[in-house]
Amino acid sequence: MTKLTLTSLLLLLLPLIFIVLTSAPPTIASEAATKGYSKSIPRFLGKFAYPNRWKPFQYETRYFEQRLDHFSIADLPKFRQRYLISTRHWTGPDRMGPIFLYCGNEGDIEWFAANTGFVWDIAPRFGAMVLFPEHRYYGESMPYGSRDKAYANAASLSYLTAEQALADFAVLVTNLKRNLSAEGCPVVLFGGSYGGMLAAWMRLKYPHIAIGALASSAPILQFEDIVPPETFYDIVSNNFKRESISCFDTIKKSWDVLISEGQKNDGLKQLTKAFRLCRDLKRTEDLSDWLDSAYSFLAMVNYPYPSDFLMPLPGHPIKEVCRKMDSCPEGTSVLERIFEGVSVYYNYTGKVECFQLDDDPHGMDGWNWQACTEMVMPMASSRESSMFPTYDYNYSSFQEECWKDFSVKPRPTWITTEFGGHDFKTTLKVFGSNIIFSNGLLDPWSGGSVLQNISETVVALVTEEGAHHIDLRSSTAEDPDWLVEQRAFEVKLIKGWIEDYHQKRNSVFSI
Amino acid sequence: MTKLTLTSLLLLLLPLIFIVLTSAPPTIASEAATKGYSKSIPRFLGKFAYPNRWKPFQYETRYFEQRLDHFSIADLPKFRQRYLISTRHWTGPDRMGPIFLYCGNEGDIEWFAANTGFVWDIAPRFGAMVLFPEHRYYGESMPYGSRDKAYANAASLSYLTAEQALADFAVLVTNLKRNLSAEGCPVVLFGGSYGGMLAAWMRLKYPHIAIGALASSAPILQFEDIVPPETFYDIVSNNFKRESISCFDTIKKSWDVLISEGQKNDGLKQLTKAFRLCRDLKRTEDLSDWLDSAYSFLAMVNYPYPSDFLMPLPGHPIKEVCRKMDSCPEGTSVLERIFEGVSVYYNYTGKVECFQLDDDPHGMDGWNWQACTEMVMPMASSRESSMFPTYDYNYSSFQEECWKDFSVKPRPTWITTEFGGHDFKTTLKVFGSNIIFSNGLLDPWSGGSVLQNISETVVALVTEEGAHHIDLRSSTAEDPDWLVEQRAFEVKLIKGWIEDYHQKRNSVFSI
Repeated sequence: MTKLTLTSLLLLLLPLIFIVLTSAPPTIASEAATKGYSKSIPRFLGKFAYPNRWKPFQYETRYFEQRLDHFSIADLPKFRQRYLISTRHWTGPDRMGPIFLYCGNEGDIEWFAANTGFVWDIAPRFGAMVLFPEHRYYGESMPYGSRDKAYANAASLSYLTAEQALADFAVLVTNLKRNLSAEGCPVVLFGGSYGGMLAAWMRLKYPHIAIGALASSAPILQFEDIVPPETFYDIVSNNFKRESISCFDTIKKSWDVLISEGQKNDGLKQLTKAFRLCRDLKRTEDLSDWLDSAYSFLAMVNYPYPSDFLMPLPGHPIKEVCRKMDSCPEGTSVLERIFEGVSVYYNYTGKVECFQLDDDPHGMDGWNWQACTEMVMPMASSRESSMFPTYDYNYSSFQEECWKDFSVKPRPTWITTEFGGHDFKTTLKVFGSNIIFSNGLLDPWSGGSVLQNISETVVALVTEEGAHHIDLRSSTAEDPDWLVEQRAFEVKLIKGWIEDYHQKRNSVFSI
Repeated sequence: MTKLTLTSLLLLLLPLIFIVLTSAPPTIASEAATKGYSKSIPRFLGKFAYPNRWKPFQYETRYFEQRLDHFSIADLPKFRQRYLISTRHWTGPDRMGPIFLYCGNEGDIEWFAANTGFVWDIAPRFGAMVLFPEHRYYGESMPYGSRDKAYANAASLSYLTAEQALADFAVLVTNLKRNLSAEGCPVVLFGGSYGGMLAAWMRLKYPHIAIGALASSAPILQFEDIVPPETFYDIVSNNFKRESISCFDTIKKSWDVLISEGQKNDGLKQLTKAFRLCRDLKRTEDLSDWLDSAYSFLAMVNYPYPSDFLMPLPGHPIKEVCRKMDSCPEGTSVLERIFEGVSVYYNYTGKVECFQLDDDPHGMDGWNWQACTEMVMPMASSRESSMFPTYDYNYSSFQEECWKDFSVKPRPTWITTEFGGHDFKTTLKVFGSNIIFSNGLLDPWSGGSVLQNISETVVALVTEEGAHHIDLRSSTAEDPDWLVEQRAFEVKLIKGWIEDYHQKRNSVFSI
């Protein structure tokens, strides 16, 4: 066995080792992991992003001083942006080694680094530098010196915007390249979810900085009326329906049962007991939110193999949830079935003694702020196709909620003004190039992304059995063929971008 | 004669009438028109932009409420952006009539509207709406309610940046189109000088908003070390040299003569008298700056026909300056010749009784602020090729000057980070499309622009006898053939963009 093959094998095994080592279960399902949100706030995963106990990849941690507002000259305090860097496999400036830049999103960058094995896996064969800059206002990259100060109020949070984050990336990588005399080294962007949106937007807005972007599970069209607001919850619902109609029906029925149970004498007490809650339930809605969260996140991580991305989960977790619900003995009540089902999500290890609901779903969370300002993604749940309670998108109540939580007024049309969206196909066709929009159709966010090839170089990679940016995870021995092929195709496209870059560069220089 | 031909004739004559009506000369050359700058501040024309006494074109004046900082959520006071609009020839949303948007630059928008006749001339044949939004912090578009408050200090000036101005245009036109149900109407950008830079950058940054840009005399490469810092003054110098070597030599010699005269007893008094200054000269440098300004601006408006853009001037004004200098009787002193020469610029009408130098060249001028923050354009004057005093580009003294004037630190690498610049050809080749960079080689700004075709759709239109965005001016009966041809070609290209837009749109819709 050659050295190269050994390394590859080790890389293949790393994530497995990682899963084993990090799955020590808590006895109380942690508050962070159970935070519930009403349907008006789009659900992304960043809130689960806590620094990993064990770092599966090798990198250096560095800091870079950034302006708080790149687009004004206001004399605001600078802040330190954290970034992770590995030059271990980089072939360097002379050989124009590429730079793989992951666009840090709404959470601790170490968590994203640990969960984006694909970039680490492929960097060696490209001789690439790996760079994971953290998104401002997350992890350690806090303006005003601390999280408390950064999140103090609407004024201190003002500079938490996508455009500022993109400018951070642009300034950082430009500076880094200059310091390394690596101006000629091509930059390739990667990102998942909101990070994927950043990667796609960065490719469009900073074409002079990056030659291409892999935007995985990036719902850049989930704004205004570009896609129907029911899309997200319809896809979650279909995840359950495709496994079992009765499972879908049980969940659909359960909301009314919950309400009527809650309204009974001692109803909240009974629900507290039935759902093994650590603290007395105060409102039935808190329990509904907790269940709603479980289903939505299950759909996002409906991976074909066991994972520990959000929670320790089996492969095909929704299949497992439905198997549990459906296999209860006849006569089992709807709520008992529901409890059996969600226990797969909240307590797969079986070691949780009681469940902790979230008391403050609208706390000073970075993503909630973003959702209340720029990232206004309309969400609704339809009477017909959804298994969730019917919920119409109501902008005014959303606006009120944001005002209550942050004293801020949303800017619902800003993102499409700044980045486009309506008529996106035409724009992408004419302007975009070297963008991969990869999506798994099980992922509820896929409905807000680009699912059709736009041109020869703006490509949609759609996998029927894929979930939320599964392609960005490390390869494992259990990867299904379609996933292996998808990643191979992504590698091929990225290789093409880099070759093309060198070719174009040579032809320009030879003019 | 058909109605159409009559209208065309009238349009051809309008600028002539305009020149005649507006050329009532002041008896004291106005302070604004004589503001001098040291070589560290790039010279643009916006400071001459005062509302015209007579408006040659018909439009409505409207106002639109804008955020002060588009890229943060900071709760800052909104401001009213002025814009001029004409829907007179617009064929409307149903027929997808195009929208011609002039990117307002560093001055009063009415002045730019009056001096950008090309857009008005061609709008009727395109059935286009004409839109002239004003640049924030200029004209009437003042944040904080007044010019005094907007220009109070560095903090109040903070939001005077190019990116904010582009976002203003984007938000305005998006809103306007939505209100008119004109989302499908293609937007074409126009701009001259800094406005041309904005047009080109807007096409790159907001491809979903505008389908093409005519960027006339736009020195987007005049940053960092992309072009040599001597470029500007070398081109000014060549303007004189090509007319007459002796003229060039006289000017080149004059600076030392000035200094030695100024150092004599009563020297400043003698100079005051020789140059007919209204007030006693305090420092020889003020006079040098005044002369330097005249030569630089003469090169910019070295048009082949009489104009009244900055000052009432004859056609080929530099030829006239040199003729005056050279035709003095033998024995005329260097400074007497210089005075004869610059009088063509400052006193072509012959009615100025005394000349007013600028006392405060670094006052709170918007363009100076921009030059001291983002628009850091290195300027130098070489011993060999320039007729100006030798001047090396010195960043630290520039920085000091900016600190003294505005208490602000320049951001010399920001523009290329945000908009690109190094390796611009590659980026434009891959990303840009539908951009015309038009330049006249007499224009000292042409050296910092794009002078080579980049691709089939990113085109350089270079005219040997053209000066600063002459193509954007109204056509006149005196237009030389090359100018008529240049404009016809621009019209042809713009027509192509619009046809292409409709074709692509149809093909996308028919998928």
